[in-house]
Amino acid sequence: MQIARVCGTVVSNHKEQSLTGVKFLLVQFLNEEGQPLSEYEVAADSVGAGLDEWVLVSRGSAARQSSSSEARPLDALIVGIIDTVSVGNQRLYSKRDQDR
Amino acid sequence: MQIARVCGTVVSNHKEQSLTGVKFLLVQFLNEEGQPLSEYEVAADSVGAGLDEWVLVSRGSAARQSSSSEARPLDALIVGIIDTVSVGNQRLYSKRDQDR
Amino acid sequence: MQIARVCGTVVSNHKEQSLTGVKFLLVQFLNEEGQPLSEYEVAADSVGAGLDEWVLVSRGSAARQSSSSEARPLDALIVGIIDTVSVGNQRLYSKRDQDR
Amino acid sequence: MQIARVCGTVVSNHKEQSLTGVKFLLVQFLNEEGQPLSEYEVAADSVGAGLDEWVLVSRGSAARQSSSSEARPLDALIVGIIDTVSVGNQRLYSKRDQDR
Amino acid sequence: MQIARVCGTVVSNHKEQSLTGVKFLLVQFLNEEGQPLSEYEVAADSVGAGLDEWVLVSRGSAARQSSSSEARPLDALIVGIIDTVSVGNQRLYSKRDQDR
Repeated sequence: MQIARVCGTVVSNHKEQSLTGVKFLLVQFLNEEGQPLSEYEVAADSVGAGLDEWVLVSRGSAARQSSSSEARPLDALIVGIIDTVSVGNQRLYSKRDQDR
Repeated sequence: MQIARVCGTVVSNHKEQSLTGVKFLLVQFLNEEGQPLSEYEVAADSVGAGLDEWVLVSRGSAARQSSSSEARPLDALIVGIIDTVSVGNQRLYSKRDQDR
Repeated sequence: MQIARVCGTVVSNHKEQSLTGVKFLLVQFLNEEGQPLSEYEVAADSVGAGLDEWVLVSRGSAARQSSSSEARPLDALIVGIIDTVSVGNQRLYSKRDQDR
Repeated sequence: MQIARVCGTVVSNHKEQSLTGVKFLLVQFLNEEGQPLSEYEVAADSVGAGLDEWVLVSRGSAARQSSSSEARPLDALIVGIIDTVSVGNQRLYSKRDQDR
Repeated sequence: MQIARVCGTVVSNHKEQSLTGVKFLLVQFLNEEGQPLSEYEVAADSVGAGLDEWVLVSRGSAARQSSSSEARPLDALIVGIIDTVSVGNQRLYSKRDQDR
């Protein structure tokens, strides 16, 4: 999985029928130090992630291993909202600090 | 999924039999600010996208999760025509503005 | 799919048994303007492509969605010989011109 | 598979239900000379890897070919703890030396 | 598939049970001119490849399309030992010359 920050939304009304009701979020990948990478992805959201939250994104066929995404033409899924990222013994990110 | 702009067409008459009738569009990937990336893809179209429209492209096995694409040797599918892309609270792209 | 030009052949006699009889072509990926990219691929050929022809290449599990490739350890397949590539209203490539 | 060094942990409490109990490790990919690459991955751990250990990471659908990972939206899995890496006749890495 | 040169071995004793007995080779990808690329892969070997031999490597789910690899968490497999690589009408590589 990759670490990403939710940075926006994409709306598509005219789409594959099986995608009706799927919410598309624009996520910016972050490197292991929390800096934005040039890569982004439009991911389906299955956990109710909000703007600026750090999330875990699964890509490829993994994105369809959930009841809300299976058998749909999706290749990226937000699978979790991140609480903490620790590198070595240092806390790199904490959602609690962010939310203050 | 990636955001892309439809920029052309590819025609192949001599091809895998299962691809008969599949329309191939050339799509240019865009970054999250709408600038063209160096990457492109030839994607099957399942939604009737037109030249210059912004679309969502699914790649990998996701491209075969549709009745018009399953069991065909396809690795990229246009799954939706984009209406709006918003980054933070700003509208980055709106199809309505584009169509004027 | 990616646009590629057939540029060579690879021969392997000692290989997975299921690959017996599979023809391996070396294909050079082209960008959307027809310039060679640094990427190449060794792809199985299911359409009888010849040297210098432009072809469509499917990668990943898509490469096994054909009777000649299924259940074989293949991750790239030539799925069509390209007749024309058009960008906007301009013809970028035409096989007919090439064949003259 | 890629060679990686375990460099941290990621905690997510609000996630896909099927991921309950899955441990997420942050792994830094290494090149074939043991130097850190810019790429990283958040991988599920199925072998009990510890901080600073070198591990083998499988990505894509391979990450779900284990009883602890199947049918979960995972695209990266630590599949082994590396004992030795040898390039030509030279030992590049030995866990035993590392553990001293 | 990619062209690669076998350049080493990786040993992992503590690993996914299904990987018991699988031999892991370190392979260096080569470009279409035979020059080493920065990419490498740890691939399972199903054909008995030896050091310095040029091989064909399949990645992704293709790596599990063999009796020795199916249902194992593998994402790269050596599927053949290369005899010759020809670009245009020129022989780029011949195993016979190499073996002299």
